[in-house]
Amino acid sequence: MTAEDKSGASLPGDARFFYKEGPFPLSRLVEVTGADVQGDNTQQDMFVGVAPLHEANAEHVSFFDNRRYLPLLEKTRAGAVIVGSAFADKVPEGCIALVVKEPYLAWSRVARLFHPRPVLEGKQHPSAVIGEGAVIGRCVEIGPFAVIGQGAQIGDGCVIGAHAVIGEHVEMGAGCIIGSQVTVSHALLGERVILYPGARIGQDGFGFAVGPEGFESVPQLGRVIIGDGVEVGANSTIDRGSMRDTVIGAGTRIDNLVQIGHNAQLGRCCIVVSQAGVSGSTIVEDFVTIAAQAGLAGHLRIGTKARIGAQCGVMSDVDAGADVIGSPAMPFREFFRNIATLRKLSRK
Amino acid sequence: MTAEDKSGASLPGDARFFYKEGPFPLSRLVEVTGADVQGDNTQQDMFVGVAPLHEANAEHVSFFDNRRYLPLLEKTRAGAVIVGSAFADKVPEGCIALVVKEPYLAWSRVARLFHPRPVLEGKQHPSAVIGEGAVIGRCVEIGPFAVIGQGAQIGDGCVIGAHAVIGEHVEMGAGCIIGSQVTVSHALLGERVILYPGARIGQDGFGFAVGPEGFESVPQLGRVIIGDGVEVGANSTIDRGSMRDTVIGAGTRIDNLVQIGHNAQLGRCCIVVSQAGVSGSTIVEDFVTIAAQAGLAGHLRIGTKARIGAQCGVMSDVDAGADVIGSPAMPFREFFRNIATLRKLSRK
Amino acid sequence: MTAEDKSGASLPGDARFFYKEGPFPLSRLVEVTGADVQGDNTQQDMFVGVAPLHEANAEHVSFFDNRRYLPLLEKTRAGAVIVGSAFADKVPEGCIALVVKEPYLAWSRVARLFHPRPVLEGKQHPSAVIGEGAVIGRCVEIGPFAVIGQGAQIGDGCVIGAHAVIGEHVEMGAGCIIGSQVTVSHALLGERVILYPGARIGQDGFGFAVGPEGFESVPQLGRVIIGDGVEVGANSTIDRGSMRDTVIGAGTRIDNLVQIGHNAQLGRCCIVVSQAGVSGSTIVEDFVTIAAQAGLAGHLRIGTKARIGAQCGVMSDVDAGADVIGSPAMPFREFFRNIATLRKLSRK
Repeated sequence: MTAEDKSGASLPGDARFFYKEGPFPLSRLVEVTGADVQGDNTQQDMFVGVAPLHEANAEHVSFFDNRRYLPLLEKTRAGAVIVGSAFADKVPEGCIALVVKEPYLAWSRVARLFHPRPVLEGKQHPSAVIGEGAVIGRCVEIGPFAVIGQGAQIGDGCVIGAHAVIGEHVEMGAGCIIGSQVTVSHALLGERVILYPGARIGQDGFGFAVGPEGFESVPQLGRVIIGDGVEVGANSTIDRGSMRDTVIGAGTRIDNLVQIGHNAQLGRCCIVVSQAGVSGSTIVEDFVTIAAQAGLAGHLRIGTKARIGAQCGVMSDVDAGADVIGSPAMPFREFFRNIATLRKLSRK
Repeated sequence: MTAEDKSGASLPGDARFFYKEGPFPLSRLVEVTGADVQGDNTQQDMFVGVAPLHEANAEHVSFFDNRRYLPLLEKTRAGAVIVGSAFADKVPEGCIALVVKEPYLAWSRVARLFHPRPVLEGKQHPSAVIGEGAVIGRCVEIGPFAVIGQGAQIGDGCVIGAHAVIGEHVEMGAGCIIGSQVTVSHALLGERVILYPGARIGQDGFGFAVGPEGFESVPQLGRVIIGDGVEVGANSTIDRGSMRDTVIGAGTRIDNLVQIGHNAQLGRCCIVVSQAGVSGSTIVEDFVTIAAQAGLAGHLRIGTKARIGAQCGVMSDVDAGADVIGSPAMPFREFFRNIATLRKLSRK
Repeated sequence: MTAEDKSGASLPGDARFFYKEGPFPLSRLVEVTGADVQGDNTQQDMFVGVAPLHEANAEHVSFFDNRRYLPLLEKTRAGAVIVGSAFADKVPEGCIALVVKEPYLAWSRVARLFHPRPVLEGKQHPSAVIGEGAVIGRCVEIGPFAVIGQGAQIGDGCVIGAHAVIGEHVEMGAGCIIGSQVTVSHALLGERVILYPGARIGQDGFGFAVGPEGFESVPQLGRVIIGDGVEVGANSTIDRGSMRDTVIGAGTRIDNLVQIGHNAQLGRCCIVVSQAGVSGSTIVEDFVTIAAQAGLAGHLRIGTKARIGAQCGVMSDVDAGADVIGSPAMPFREFFRNIATLRKLSRK
C-alpha cells in the first residue's frame, strides 16, 4: 500500500498533524471576516472546517480567489464560499456567499479560526544545552538538542526547534519561532520572527582580498538585524555584514533557498520569492517584490514598490514603482515587445 | 601534504568509504547484465572491481556510454567494457566487450555487485529521542541525536540518520533512508524513499494575505505525500500544501537545492535537476524532465513527458511531449532559431 | 522596541559578537599594510578600530575602494583611510591617507589586526559522539552534539561546530573550521578548509539508470577531495564522484547555495558565487570566476581565468581567458550588442 493510497481523505487539516477547533456558527464566520452574507440558503448554520471548492460539503467553508478555478466554484457543494463581490453571482444555488473585499485575507482568518496555533506549554527538553548567562523568557519552548549560546536573550513565548543553534549573545524578541536545525549567529531579531528549518543567519559574508598567496578572507564585522514579523524560508541564507549590518525590515517575507548577501538592506514588507538572490550591499526599499530565481547585483538601489520579475537579472538601479524583467532587467513592456519582435523576425 | 596528494589511488570504491565484494567471474557479470560477450580475449575470467576507462586494468570492468569519451575507450586497458552495440567494434583488442542495450543500467548493476549496500544491523544510538507512541519497525537504524516525534511510524529496515528530525505522526514505509539533518513534518512517505542530508520536507508554504498591518500568514493545512522510490537531494525543500497536499509521485528523482512549492503535484518518474523550482499549485504530469535552474510559475500544468530545458522560465502550460527552453519558455527550435536570427542581425 | 532600534551603534565589531584588540599606533598600521603615509595631519597616532567612511571618527581607520562611494570619502571624519594612489588626493584634510596598491587587502589585514580570530582553547563538549578509532589532533574544539565517525582523522587546531556530522574515515588537515550542522562524508579535506553552516559534502551524486521498473540509482563510488584553504558557503552542496572524484582545488572560494555535481573538478583559486551550479563531470580550470546564479552543463571544460557572468547558461566549452554571459553563453560584447540590436529593432 503506497503513501498515496494511505493518505486517505485529502481534506485540509489532517487531524494527525493539525490542531482543530469548532464547529462554529455562521455568525462567527461573519465576525472574523466582516463578510456580507448573500445567497438563498441560510439554513446551514454550523460549519466544521475548511475545504477546497471541489472537496467541500455543506458543513465546510471554502474560498475562491483565482479566475482559473471558476469551473470549480460553479459546481462546489460547499456550505459557504468566501468570495469577492465580482464573483458573488457565480456562487451556486444552495451555497452561502461570504462576500468580502479581500477574500484571501478572510480565508486566512477562517482557516486560523478552525486551526489555531497550539497553545505553548513552555516545555524545555532536558537535552538542550543552554550557555552561561543566557536569558530565557517566560513560556519558551526548547526542543531536543537545541543549543543556546552564552549570553543569548530569548524573548517570552519563543519556540526554539530541535537542533537549532543560537549563537552567543544573539537576541530575539517575544514570540519568535526558530525552526529545527536553524543556525543564527551575530544577529538581533525583533518580535514574532519566524525562521524555517535550515535557515542560516549571520555567517560570514563572501568577502576576500587577493593576497600574494591566494585569497585572504576579509573579517566580516557586521551583524544581521531582523525586524518584527519577518519570516525566512527553509534553507535560505542571510550573511552578516562586513562593515555595516545586513538588515531585513519589519514584515518582510523571504521564501525558501533565498540568498541575501552581506550588507544588503531590505526594507519593510518586501517579498522575496524562492531561489532569488540579493547581492552584497544592495539596498532594497520598502514594499519591493522580488520574484523567484531573480538575481540582484551588488551595490544597487531598488526603489519602493518596484517589482522584479522571475529570473530577472538586475544589473543597475531600479526606480520606485518600476516593473522589470529579463536578464539584463528591462521594463515589462519592453521585454515582451522584444520577444514579439524577435519571433516575427525569425519567422521571415 | 595536501588532500590532493593524500588522496592516493583514484580508483572508485576507496575501501575507507565503500564496502566491497568480489572478485567475480565473467559469468557473474553476464548474469547481472544479460550482456552478449564479444572480443577475442576471453582469458580474463576473474574481475576485482570497476574502474573508469583510463584507469582500469585487466582485472577491472569499465563502461562506455558517452561519445565524448571515445578516445579513452579506444585505448583502455580494462579487462572488460560494458558498451552498446553501436560501439562494440571500438573496444580494443584484448578487452572483452559486454554488449548490452542499456549500458548505463548494466554498469549500475555491475557496480552494485562489487559494492552492495551494507547490511543493516538495526543499531539505534542511545542518544536518539523517540516520542511517545512512535512505532519503529524491525531492523531500523537510528543515528545519534535523531528525534522521532510522538506517534510517528517508521517502516521496517528504515535508516534514520544522525540529527534527523521526524515530526509527530509522520509515517514512512519500509526501506526509507533519511539522511543526516533532514527535517520531515506533516508528511506521509511511501517505501524506499531516500532523503539526502539537509532536505526539508513539510514546512509551511509561502502563503500570506495582505492585512491592514502587513502580511498575515495563511494557515498551511495540507501535507506532503511522497510516493515509493522517490529521492530528494541535499538541501532541497518541499513545502506542505495549503488546502490540498503537495504530492511527489512514485519513482520521481529530485536533485539538490530544488524548491517545490505548496500544493504542487509531481507525477511518477519525473526528474528535477539541481536548483530548479516548481511554484505552488503547479501540476507536473508523469515522466517530465525539468533541467537545472529551470523555474515553473504557479498554477500551471506540464504535460506528460514534456522536457523543460536548463534555466527555462515557464510562464504558461506546456503540452505533453513538448520540449521547451528559454525565459519565457518556447519550443527548442524556436529558441535556437531566435538566437541565430539575432546574431545575424547584430553582425550587420 | 524593535530589533532595529535595539541594534544600537552600528559601528562594525559589536563587542557582543567580536573579539577586539587595540588600540594600535599608526606605525602598527603601516607595518601590517606596507602603506605610504600621506596627509597633513599626523597628529592622530592611536587608533581604536575600523569603521566605514560615514561613521568613522578620528580614532578609526576606514577604507575606500569603490568609486561609487567617493562622496563619502570626501566628507569622512576618519582619522585614517586606506586608499589606492589614484584617490589619495580625495582624502579630506585632517585625515591620514594610507596609500597602498591593494586597498582591500590592506583593509582586510587592518580589520584582522583589531579583530583577530579568537585563540582556540581545545574545548570538547561532552555531548559529542566520537567514533571508535577516530584520531583527534591537538587543540581541536568540538561543539555540542557533534558526531565524528569511526576512523575519522581530524587535524590539529580544527574546530568542529555544534551538530556537525563527520562521516566515517573522513580526513581533514590542520586548521579546518567545520560550521554548525555541516555534513561531510566520503571526503578528504586539506588544511585550513572552512565549511559554513549547512554545507553538504560527499552525499550521492544524481545518477540513475532507466530500468524496467523505473529509475535505478547508480552506485556513486568516488569521493570529494578538497584542497587547502578552500571555503564552501552555507547550504552549498558538493556531491561525491561516481567513478572518479569530485575535486575542489586549493584556494577556491564557493559562496552560499552553490551546487557542485558529481565528478566535477574545480581548479585552484576559482570563485563560485551564490546560487551558481556546476553540473557533473565538468572541468573548471584554475582562476575561473563563476558569477551568481550561473549554470554550467555537464562534461564541459572551462579554461583558465575564464569569467562566467551572472545567470549565464554555459552549454559548451569556454576558452581560457574568455568572458561569457547570457543563456546560452556568448562573449560579453556579443551579448550586449544583441541587446542593443533588439532594442533598436523593437522601437521601429
